[in-house]
Amino acid sequence: MTNPVLVEVMRGALVESRHRGAVAVIDADGRTMFEIGDVDRPVFPRSAIKAIQALPLVESGAADACGFDDRDLALACASHSGEAAHAERAAAMLARAGLDEDALECGSHWPLGEQATLDLARAGQTPSALHNNCSGKHAGFLCVCCHGGTAHRGYSGYDHPMQRELRAVMEQVTGAVHDRDNAAVDGCSIPTHAVPLRALAFGFARMATGAGLAPRRAEAAKRLLGACMAEPFFMSGSARIDERLMAAAAGRIFCKTGAEGVYCAAIPELGLGVALKCDDGATRASETMLAAMLAKLLAAGDPLATTLRDMARPPVVSRRGIRVGEIRATEGLA
Amino acid sequence: MTNPVLVEVMRGALVESRHRGAVAVIDADGRTMFEIGDVDRPVFPRSAIKAIQALPLVESGAADACGFDDRDLALACASHSGEAAHAERAAAMLARAGLDEDALECGSHWPLGEQATLDLARAGQTPSALHNNCSGKHAGFLCVCCHGGTAHRGYSGYDHPMQRELRAVMEQVTGAVHDRDNAAVDGCSIPTHAVPLRALAFGFARMATGAGLAPRRAEAAKRLLGACMAEPFFMSGSARIDERLMAAAAGRIFCKTGAEGVYCAAIPELGLGVALKCDDGATRASETMLAAMLAKLLAAGDPLATTLRDMARPPVVSRRGIRVGEIRATEGLA
Repeated sequence: MTNPVLVEVMRGALVESRHRGAVAVIDADGRTMFEIGDVDRPVFPRSAIKAIQALPLVESGAADACGFDDRDLALACASHSGEAAHAERAAAMLARAGLDEDALECGSHWPLGEQATLDLARAGQTPSALHNNCSGKHAGFLCVCCHGGTAHRGYSGYDHPMQRELRAVMEQVTGAVHDRDNAAVDGCSIPTHAVPLRALAFGFARMATGAGLAPRRAEAAKRLLGACMAEPFFMSGSARIDERLMAAAAGRIFCKTGAEGVYCAAIPELGLGVALKCDDGATRASETMLAAMLAKLLAAGDPLATTLRDMARPPVVSRRGIRVGEIRATEGLA
Repeated sequence: MTNPVLVEVMRGALVESRHRGAVAVIDADGRTMFEIGDVDRPVFPRSAIKAIQALPLVESGAADACGFDDRDLALACASHSGEAAHAERAAAMLARAGLDEDALECGSHWPLGEQATLDLARAGQTPSALHNNCSGKHAGFLCVCCHGGTAHRGYSGYDHPMQRELRAVMEQVTGAVHDRDNAAVDGCSIPTHAVPLRALAFGFARMATGAGLAPRRAEAAKRLLGACMAEPFFMSGSARIDERLMAAAAGRIFCKTGAEGVYCAAIPELGLGVALKCDDGATRASETMLAAMLAKLLAAGDPLATTLRDMARPPVVSRRGIRVGEIRATEGLA
C-alpha cells in the first residue's frame, strides 16, 4: 500500500516537496475512529512512547521514593532541548538515586535546541550525557533500578531486567508483540520495537482513559500524562511544538514527538489515542500532520481547533525572514 | 505519477523510513540515457544550478577583471559551510569589486557546518551575510553588476537586470521556460524557477560538453566546472559529500547539491548530465541517490564506482557512535 501525500511544502504557488504518511485514531475499546494510510505497517515509535516507558518509574514507587514532582516526571517522558534547566534537572534526578551522569548509557550530543547549543559553545563547554534529549528517560530507568535493587550497569541492553520490564509494559499497554524479530537499537542505545500505528494509538487511548490498565497502572498513566501537560517545557523545550501545543491546550491534549517522523498523542476528554508517522521521517511533516489531525478531532467551534490549524500551517521563510511559502496539510487531514 | 521509493533508511533489519524520488540522465543531444520516476514534473532546482548562474561572472569578463582564481569561482558556485575560509574569501571577492558585506542581499544564518557554527559561537560572534551559504554566489552577482556598470542595489529582485540575465542564461542552457508562472523566491531571496529534471540534466550535459553553447559560454562552463572540481572545499565544506565526492573523483565528476533534496551533476568523460530530486526534500536521500546513480553510470570495474557505492550507503549510528542501521539505495538505483 502506498500511503497518501498528507503534507505539502509550498514555495510560492507551487508544491516544492511532498510528505506521505499514515495516521491512526483509536479509542480505548480498540475501535478505529479515523485512519488514513497503512496503519498496520510496523513503525519504530522511537521517543514517542516515553510516557509509556516511564510507567515503571511511577508504578514501582521509585518516583515517590525519590521525591519527584511533575517537572521530574515530565523530564522522564521528554525529548528535551538540552537547555540548562533540563540538564540540571536530569542531574538532580540522578543525585536522588545516588548516581551521577557517569551512569547514563545514552551517549551525548549537542543539544536539540539551537540556542542551547550556542549557549553551551559560548560558555566554552561541550555537551555531556545530561544534554542528550533522552537523559531524563535514562535517569528514570536508573532510579527504577536503584529503587528495586537491580544492578543498573548495562540497563540499556536487550536482556537487562529494565528492558525486559519495558517490553512487558509496552506489550500490555499496546497489545503488540515486542520481541527480537521487531527489535532494533534506538539512538539512545535502548531497544526499540516496530509495531503498528494502530497499536500505538490504542495504547495512548488506554493511557488517556485508564481503560484496560490495572488500577495502579491507570493511576501512573494519569499522573505521567498530567505531569507532561502541566510542565510541557520539561518534556520538550523552548518554542518547540510539543511545548507550544500542550501549553495552548492547557491540559486537554498530551502529545509526544519521536524521531523519524513519529508522533503519539492522547485526548483524554474524547478518550482517544493518536499515532502517526511520516514515511520519510521528516519532523516538519509529522508536526503538521499532528496539529491538523488534532484540530480535525475537536469540535468545529472549539477555539483550540483554530490554534491547532494555525500550528499546522507554518510559513516557509527566506534567510531574511520574508515569507516565501508555507507547509500545509492536504485535504485528507485538513 | 507516484515516484518510486529510491532510498530506504534501515534500523536493524527493518525499513524505518522511505524516500521517493526521480532521476534523469541526459546527454548533450537531449537523449535520455536513464530515467526513473517522473522527470517531467517541474522542480525548483534551488542551489543545484549555481554553476549555471555563475556563467555571467565569467562570460562578462568580470571574473578576470577582479582577478578571480579557481577558489573564487568555486565559491561563486558554492553552498559553502560558512567556515572562516569561506567567509573570508567572500569578503575578499566583494572587496575586489569595491564593496563589502553590506551589499549582500542574501540575509544571514548560522553556518551550514556544525563545527563552523560552534567556532563562531565560541569566539563570541554571530553570523553575518558572509556566512550565508550563498555569499559567494551573491558576491559573484555583485561583481557582474559593478563590472557592467549596473546599479547593484536590488540585484536580487525579479526585474533587476541581473535576474533577467540569469533567466535568459538558464533558458538557453536548459531549454526550459523561466517566467512568472513557474517562479518563487529562493532562501537567499533571488527568484527560483520550477523546471523539469529532464531540462536540468540536459543543461548540465551541455555545461559538461559545451555542446549547444556559444564558444564563450562553453569556455566559461568548462572553466567553472573545472574550478569546482579542483577546489571542492570552496564550493562545499569540510567532510560534506560534494567535497568528498569531487575530491575522490579527481576531476571526473562535478556535482552540486540544492535545498529540498535536489542534486545536479555532470560527467564530462561520458558527456552526461544528471538531475534528481527526492520528493520529500531530504538531503540524506538525495546524497544516496546521487552517489548510487553516478556509480551505476561508471564502468563496473572502475574503482571510483566502488567509492561511490560506499558513499551511497552511510551508516545510521547511535549517540554513542554504534552502527544501528544504514541508508541505502533501492534496486532501481543500486
